[in-house]
Amino acid sequence: MQQLKQQVLEANLDLPRYGLVTFTWGNVSAIDRARGLVAIKPSGVAYDALKADDIVIVDLQGEVVEGRLRPSSDTATHLALYRRYPSLGGVVHTHSTHATAWAQAGLAIPALGTTHADYFLGDIPCTRALTEEEVRGEYELNTGRVIIETLKEAEPLHTPGVVVYQHGPFAWGKDAHDAVHNAVVMEEVARMAWIARGINPDLKPIDSYLMDKHFMRKHGAHAYYGQQ
Amino acid sequence: MQQLKQQVLEANLDLPRYGLVTFTWGNVSAIDRARGLVAIKPSGVAYDALKADDIVIVDLQGEVVEGRLRPSSDTATHLALYRRYPSLGGVVHTHSTHATAWAQAGLAIPALGTTHADYFLGDIPCTRALTEEEVRGEYELNTGRVIIETLKEAEPLHTPGVVVYQHGPFAWGKDAHDAVHNAVVMEEVARMAWIARGINPDLKPIDSYLMDKHFMRKHGAHAYYGQQ
Amino acid sequence: MQQLKQQVLEANLDLPRYGLVTFTWGNVSAIDRARGLVAIKPSGVAYDALKADDIVIVDLQGEVVEGRLRPSSDTATHLALYRRYPSLGGVVHTHSTHATAWAQAGLAIPALGTTHADYFLGDIPCTRALTEEEVRGEYELNTGRVIIETLKEAEPLHTPGVVVYQHGPFAWGKDAHDAVHNAVVMEEVARMAWIARGINPDLKPIDSYLMDKHFMRKHGAHAYYGQQ
Amino acid sequence: MQQLKQQVLEANLDLPRYGLVTFTWGNVSAIDRARGLVAIKPSGVAYDALKADDIVIVDLQGEVVEGRLRPSSDTATHLALYRRYPSLGGVVHTHSTHATAWAQAGLAIPALGTTHADYFLGDIPCTRALTEEEVRGEYELNTGRVIIETLKEAEPLHTPGVVVYQHGPFAWGKDAHDAVHNAVVMEEVARMAWIARGINPDLKPIDSYLMDKHFMRKHGAHAYYGQQ
Repeated sequence: MQQLKQQVLEANLDLPRYGLVTFTWGNVSAIDRARGLVAIKPSGVAYDALKADDIVIVDLQGEVVEGRLRPSSDTATHLALYRRYPSLGGVVHTHSTHATAWAQAGLAIPALGTTHADYFLGDIPCTRALTEEEVRGEYELNTGRVIIETLKEAEPLHTPGVVVYQHGPFAWGKDAHDAVHNAVVMEEVARMAWIARGINPDLKPIDSYLMDKHFMRKHGAHAYYGQQ
Repeated sequence: MQQLKQQVLEANLDLPRYGLVTFTWGNVSAIDRARGLVAIKPSGVAYDALKADDIVIVDLQGEVVEGRLRPSSDTATHLALYRRYPSLGGVVHTHSTHATAWAQAGLAIPALGTTHADYFLGDIPCTRALTEEEVRGEYELNTGRVIIETLKEAEPLHTPGVVVYQHGPFAWGKDAHDAVHNAVVMEEVARMAWIARGINPDLKPIDSYLMDKHFMRKHGAHAYYGQQ
Repeated sequence: MQQLKQQVLEANLDLPRYGLVTFTWGNVSAIDRARGLVAIKPSGVAYDALKADDIVIVDLQGEVVEGRLRPSSDTATHLALYRRYPSLGGVVHTHSTHATAWAQAGLAIPALGTTHADYFLGDIPCTRALTEEEVRGEYELNTGRVIIETLKEAEPLHTPGVVVYQHGPFAWGKDAHDAVHNAVVMEEVARMAWIARGINPDLKPIDSYLMDKHFMRKHGAHAYYGQQ
Repeated sequence: MQQLKQQVLEANLDLPRYGLVTFTWGNVSAIDRARGLVAIKPSGVAYDALKADDIVIVDLQGEVVEGRLRPSSDTATHLALYRRYPSLGGVVHTHSTHATAWAQAGLAIPALGTTHADYFLGDIPCTRALTEEEVRGEYELNTGRVIIETLKEAEPLHTPGVVVYQHGPFAWGKDAHDAVHNAVVMEEVARMAWIARGINPDLKPIDSYLMDKHFMRKHGAHAYYGQQ
């Protein structure tokens, strides 16, 4: 598990590096599918004090298997996503400024350009509000459930993030590094979409053929971006 | 008092570190309740020149007890808050950009999401305007009085900051470090609220059950965020 | 070609330095007109790992002449511009935040002040949308064609950049360094124009005599800005 | 003159330090009133290459008295202000983002709060447009004249800056350092005013008694801010 802890440590340290977090407002996890174990940031620990040995190992039911510290208070949300989606290798939650503003606005981040389409095949959805019962009950687990309800049957790696209503963004990817990468993209396209709609309230979403072209240029069998 | 001076020094140095101040536009104080003495930044001294021995010690009536320099011109505001609220250990005033913009707009910073609710149990109020008499008279003392009038009977640690109309934010906490922490949160939620309302002018404030849940997750007897 | 590779390397490294790129979202090229060869960034390589020997040399038909890596996926766009405009020495593409927001808004960046007129003699145009056929066909080549269609008969060094609809900015100059310089200007004037129109939706474009004055102060036979 | 050159060098280097300039888009000067000589940045020289010996000395008619380089292309504007206002010791011109946006919007930066009133006793005016004759003629001199026309009989140290229509901010002070200080304030209050009006388009300007109180707290015979 040492390697997974190190990856999760580095992915967590990328959150302040990319300007996604204030204080301790974010957490990254990754899963070892073979063992069914998840490595996650401990709750409320400052990034500049975080060490690989502080990373907590839990099983998919949330039992702590290794580590001296409490896991992130959002652990149950992460685990719900790992249990439902076998393709996920990493999950990240932040309160990054612009993505959180869309969550507070209660609107999906619209697909307005190729920057968005390079990573997200369609809008970045906003969940419904959790009910009072869902909040008073197993809140973090129910947050995971409402994300799953929002994604419906979508392939989660084609919609690698959502904003949770009045809360903030969750993103994911094939590993911890990829999850953080998608969280950075979500924050940047959230910012661009805010500015673009401020310039032209009547703008149109990206044409589907341009969206498909860009997503497929970077993903899938015929991708031709990058060195592979 | 050396330890309190050191804490107040460090809390003041956190203001430029967190991007809350331009030039010398901010000041932090802390109180030693046992002795009834307050340590506060000297007036108009640049942060990069500030030393622990520059911190001024005053009593609760504003008499300088220790220190070669003049205390902050806002000292009377800080003292009014300490006298009225026994739970306060630290107070901070800045002109941070977005919180000040809400003060100039004359509106409370609305509770729009969990980022806000993690620290503030409800809107961050905006005071009424000071009258001409209040401004021409004991201006800084009257600023403290209008903050107290605005808070009414609220527990100040549940509303750890307000914006003073056409002026800027004051925040507080259980000590100087906590006060600055709340000032950083206020600036960030002020920024998010501006953006969120720009995206959707018809957005709704956070549901009270979600607000309570988040505030209590971090505060009070049943808190489960962090390591304690 | 070693000198051209070095120039293209440095110009690419200027993209993160000036805050124009997230991850690998940008590329710069330059041409050696005597040899008809273009040096361009390899596709998907991180800036902090980029070396002069990674820069790829292609001819004007896109054949790789030198280099172990794949050239940028946008190479065909760069080459179309070099083939059409003999005055171009460098080309740059980024997804810089504010210029991309104008591309998403589908509007030309209006000439609102002298900052703009010092470099662009008129609005920075926005291209039409590419058709489905153009996107499904030789997409990157067609992107170059639609830029050329947008410029019409304009001297490209008087309009040293455009935004491609729903995509982002392309800029150019007499060499790679100059192209990046113009991309920085485009991002800054895109930001200013967004803010200025937010302050006053009824503002007027810059008067033509003031625009001409500023452009000519920096360019042409009677320029008197700088040391030459 | 070595000391004045050094001050002007340091004040120019403060422009990038405070984020007021892109490339070489700014210049600071200072005057030695006893000798009637002005030290000013050379035109188009990058800040990171600037040395004290590059600073150019001109007389009040603009003749170069000392220095190998051409003075700033805006020199005639600076000199017009020094000739008209004996109280000025330093002048600065930049294209800082938010102040320039107000210049493009063609509106005065309104006095909305104490941050503004601590330095500017009233709105920061926007000049009228220069006529075609004024632009085609002695443009930089006429820019100075239109600033003077805008200030009318105001004490320039009570209104230590204006925005020139469709161009950008000019600021001044009792010396070069103070001029840059006021330029930083203008950029920050320009940003706050943009945000505040976005939050509440119906906001009110600061009450005159609060404005007077704050301005006088920092300036004049009864100032009590700072250590003197």
